[in-house]
Amino acid sequence: MHNIIKLFNLDVDLAVEARDLVRGTADREIPGVVEQVEKMEKIKITTITIKDQQGAHMMGRPIGSYVTIESPPLKINDPYVKDEIIDAMEKNMNFLFNSRLKTDDTVLLVGLGNWRATADSLGPKFIEYSPITRHYHHYAPEALVEGMRPVCGIAPGVLGITGLETFEVVEGIVNKIKPALLIVVDALAAQNVERIGTTIQMSNTGIQPGAGIGNARKALVEEKLGIPVIAIGCPTIVNASVIANQAIQKFCLNTGAIYDDLKAIDSIKNVLSYFGGSLAVTPKEIDEIIENSARIISMGVAKSLFPSISQEQLELYAT
Amino acid sequence: MHNIIKLFNLDVDLAVEARDLVRGTADREIPGVVEQVEKMEKIKITTITIKDQQGAHMMGRPIGSYVTIESPPLKINDPYVKDEIIDAMEKNMNFLFNSRLKTDDTVLLVGLGNWRATADSLGPKFIEYSPITRHYHHYAPEALVEGMRPVCGIAPGVLGITGLETFEVVEGIVNKIKPALLIVVDALAAQNVERIGTTIQMSNTGIQPGAGIGNARKALVEEKLGIPVIAIGCPTIVNASVIANQAIQKFCLNTGAIYDDLKAIDSIKNVLSYFGGSLAVTPKEIDEIIENSARIISMGVAKSLFPSISQEQLELYAT
Amino acid sequence: MHNIIKLFNLDVDLAVEARDLVRGTADREIPGVVEQVEKMEKIKITTITIKDQQGAHMMGRPIGSYVTIESPPLKINDPYVKDEIIDAMEKNMNFLFNSRLKTDDTVLLVGLGNWRATADSLGPKFIEYSPITRHYHHYAPEALVEGMRPVCGIAPGVLGITGLETFEVVEGIVNKIKPALLIVVDALAAQNVERIGTTIQMSNTGIQPGAGIGNARKALVEEKLGIPVIAIGCPTIVNASVIANQAIQKFCLNTGAIYDDLKAIDSIKNVLSYFGGSLAVTPKEIDEIIENSARIISMGVAKSLFPSISQEQLELYAT
Amino acid sequence: MHNIIKLFNLDVDLAVEARDLVRGTADREIPGVVEQVEKMEKIKITTITIKDQQGAHMMGRPIGSYVTIESPPLKINDPYVKDEIIDAMEKNMNFLFNSRLKTDDTVLLVGLGNWRATADSLGPKFIEYSPITRHYHHYAPEALVEGMRPVCGIAPGVLGITGLETFEVVEGIVNKIKPALLIVVDALAAQNVERIGTTIQMSNTGIQPGAGIGNARKALVEEKLGIPVIAIGCPTIVNASVIANQAIQKFCLNTGAIYDDLKAIDSIKNVLSYFGGSLAVTPKEIDEIIENSARIISMGVAKSLFPSISQEQLELYAT
Repeated sequence: MHNIIKLFNLDVDLAVEARDLVRGTADREIPGVVEQVEKMEKIKITTITIKDQQGAHMMGRPIGSYVTIESPPLKINDPYVKDEIIDAMEKNMNFLFNSRLKTDDTVLLVGLGNWRATADSLGPKFIEYSPITRHYHHYAPEALVEGMRPVCGIAPGVLGITGLETFEVVEGIVNKIKPALLIVVDALAAQNVERIGTTIQMSNTGIQPGAGIGNARKALVEEKLGIPVIAIGCPTIVNASVIANQAIQKFCLNTGAIYDDLKAIDSIKNVLSYFGGSLAVTPKEIDEIIENSARIISMGVAKSLFPSISQEQLELYAT
Repeated sequence: MHNIIKLFNLDVDLAVEARDLVRGTADREIPGVVEQVEKMEKIKITTITIKDQQGAHMMGRPIGSYVTIESPPLKINDPYVKDEIIDAMEKNMNFLFNSRLKTDDTVLLVGLGNWRATADSLGPKFIEYSPITRHYHHYAPEALVEGMRPVCGIAPGVLGITGLETFEVVEGIVNKIKPALLIVVDALAAQNVERIGTTIQMSNTGIQPGAGIGNARKALVEEKLGIPVIAIGCPTIVNASVIANQAIQKFCLNTGAIYDDLKAIDSIKNVLSYFGGSLAVTPKEIDEIIENSARIISMGVAKSLFPSISQEQLELYAT
Repeated sequence: MHNIIKLFNLDVDLAVEARDLVRGTADREIPGVVEQVEKMEKIKITTITIKDQQGAHMMGRPIGSYVTIESPPLKINDPYVKDEIIDAMEKNMNFLFNSRLKTDDTVLLVGLGNWRATADSLGPKFIEYSPITRHYHHYAPEALVEGMRPVCGIAPGVLGITGLETFEVVEGIVNKIKPALLIVVDALAAQNVERIGTTIQMSNTGIQPGAGIGNARKALVEEKLGIPVIAIGCPTIVNASVIANQAIQKFCLNTGAIYDDLKAIDSIKNVLSYFGGSLAVTPKEIDEIIENSARIISMGVAKSLFPSISQEQLELYAT
Repeated sequence: MHNIIKLFNLDVDLAVEARDLVRGTADREIPGVVEQVEKMEKIKITTITIKDQQGAHMMGRPIGSYVTIESPPLKINDPYVKDEIIDAMEKNMNFLFNSRLKTDDTVLLVGLGNWRATADSLGPKFIEYSPITRHYHHYAPEALVEGMRPVCGIAPGVLGITGLETFEVVEGIVNKIKPALLIVVDALAAQNVERIGTTIQMSNTGIQPGAGIGNARKALVEEKLGIPVIAIGCPTIVNASVIANQAIQKFCLNTGAIYDDLKAIDSIKNVLSYFGGSLAVTPKEIDEIIENSARIISMGVAKSLFPSISQEQLELYAT
């Protein structure tokens, strides 16, 4: 499977899936990588910590902590699971940025993706549903309740529409407004359709928009920006070539045929070549899934940023 | 392949694909089915005519004519191909409803699908971009130029959102306003990703919303509605299980493994089960493809309904 | 003021405003019209009942009951007022259609207006946020909880875009599916900007889309459709000529100049002529106001239609 | 009238309207201001040049040139007027930035406003319809035809939704990517409803987002950004208080009553107080007007930036 990913130049956005790929069928430990699982009533929280360069190399992603919240019911709007997820997000936000923010520290939210393409609109919708308060500090401080730190947000759009790298947009804002923390939300690609709308990943390692570990020049990371970067994402698509390869593998298992990854890749390319690698598999309910996920992530983040403010109050500040 | 389609209960919306499935690898004639191909500079027009019950049974669709306009450049907005397609549509509209409309006959346009789900919004966008003139005849006849027959249109929404069958909405309107012709536009599912945004199918057999030939009770067909029904569609998705099966078949071909359709189905179900049959494969450019296709179809239909009116003039009437 | 409304051919959509216009400055009773006011903690409910033809003639609207719920905080998303309004709507729905629905009676919801024009999208959004259940009765009865009557809904679009009268679309559906009750939601025009987003009107008299009492042929009323029709609306605009006239009247009051309605009309026409009567005054927050109002009305209606189902459960059925 | 504007703190966005306000009823020259009018077949071009501080003070705007293209048919989609306007824009773009751009100079487009509020979405739509090419220079130079300079664009959103000043977003991008020219597009407020959708203003003086000349700290101007700034705008609203005041003035003229601006202001405040100054007057066709204006401005700008490329080719690059 690793070969498929390399040859199609696919991203493995989820640390839990990278771990599964590294491990393969063996259930062995990965050197330099520590994992911890917490099971709650309706959700499961897996924390993968990459501790050194060896772990980073094997996992294909930077040193740091990756928290995965999994809950099949997340994709339907079950109010009870929603609250459990929001609580888990709040708690893990605190864990991930470690040092608590000071009361009046500014936070910058960044919503990656394209609001005109449903499956890629998670980031822009996150900005839309988040309470934005920074301008009240300048123009209408009397409209603020106690505990309303300055929070601002931007959805910088995608390269194909703006001609600008995300980093080119975000770096200037960071230099200008000096936030103490950056929170970046993006739609992710998964290796498994079951993850669409059921998984949230949070990490303290920043983000490489649209690329693997190599292209560090444009990464939204602490080394480049000078402030901690929390990255949050939800899988919203699976690449069509991943699905096709899984079907071939399963077919070989079922029939006893011998799986050959180069020939599998050839076969898949032949079927999917017309649109190159850009074919995405999504469920019909994707609009609703994005909507719900964006609202839940907005609230989970808001609760961690404004711990003394009630959820009802926060909804009033969400534009 | 036929088995896959039956077992996953998939639609084969395109007559040219049904023909390929019936023929299989052999290039034999299908009894009761006549085919004619016309190649133009940038497009290819295939007319499949099902002449009798035997042909209808083999092709899994009603007696009638199916015109398929194929042009890889359709999906990009090449102005030259656009005009060739619009001309071909106009000509074949005339061929399909055979008897010409009288000057003041009313025409009802129906745009099937869900305007909130990109890949399913072709029909509603067709209504949006079509010149609608019927109300001018009642309220502002002076705003009409010579040759502006009464045209009206509705996008009835989808069952999951309205709780209403399309037929339940359309039948009443037909009885009330007595159109001489119904034109129904819908997004289709293809068996091949290359067809997305490159193919238009037009037929004079009406349409069975969201189903095969069986569910005749709810079909939009002349027998039920009492007026001719032209159905027009563009493929906008391929079902994920179709892609997966093609990859398995190609892999068997490449490796010499023996293809077994039951085991293929098992493998695919295993990979895709979580969202049932509702997983669709679409290219990332789907928003743009739908937009362009809807505009081209609107104009092709409008030119056939208002033969004496210029394209510029028609665009002024398109709301 | 009456003259302004006649001369500009404006609608007075709200019964409470028609009452004020009839009364003028005098606080006299209107023959054939009974009024009752209930004040609650955050809202005020005025029930105007037109009892006979004399009252109907004076009020310019049919015999029947008109319930107006007023609450300045309605336009902001105050969770507490929201619940009070939803409760008031539920209670008055029961009052207005008098005879209770039987358990398995079908209800048809109609959302008037144009979803592409913000200030006119209240009706379509009402359909979007309402729980739709009728199709589950046919296709997935196991997905229904006890007490889930069949509810369906349609947003038929506006004449200018479809070329169809609302009545032409709705009558056929009513004949086909035989609902026991029709509920129609529409955006209204007010005489006062303070009413935008703060007022809900409910009546049991049906509705004349886009027109006064004269054009009965196209009215959605019990006499025509054979079933009770509840009409619900919220003011979302004030016509610009109404605002201008109010300013002139107030100016005359402030300066002692003599108000002359013909000269006022001339002056206003002169200022607004370019776009005819189609100039609307809306607040910048109109998108948010429509969104909140549509959600509140959907929930108020749903609670009255599914009295045994919890609000959380209802939200799961809202597509 | 001047008092109305001051007291309601309104913007006079159009130089031609500022000129009319300064002149009042007298047709005198304004010191330090030169005006030139060119009449073409379907459009009229007025160039107002503010030459010194005295002119700037009287006109309430910076020294520089303001080109106004007026054409009543602009708001309908007349293909012939469209081409005349696009040509006029191209010609005046060259006039305004004076020194021609070098072949490979980068240009940054900025679309101000809120894409979720129709009347404020001109800027974001301008970005959407403009050919964006900068990323091809990095990633796919082979996709570029000769003469395709690097153009990029951003719609930074509005303060109320992002908590960020436009200047805070744009300055960082300018510093990072070093464009040779900034082109800013924004929706404007007019003093006259006839201007909505019929007027385009272009100037070489930059822009003060949402404010008059005072708030220079946040202005998008050459002195702050170090590069020339072309500002382009179309009126999309008239403030309701302006309409009301005009009606009062016209009424006084018609009846011989004496106009008193303080009492007029009092009267208007009384009528409009509930929503403060945020009440906008727009025609019902505003969605269509914005759409057409955005497409025309995009094309006019694109023609001036890519003089050797055909309009058809440019449309292919517009995402």
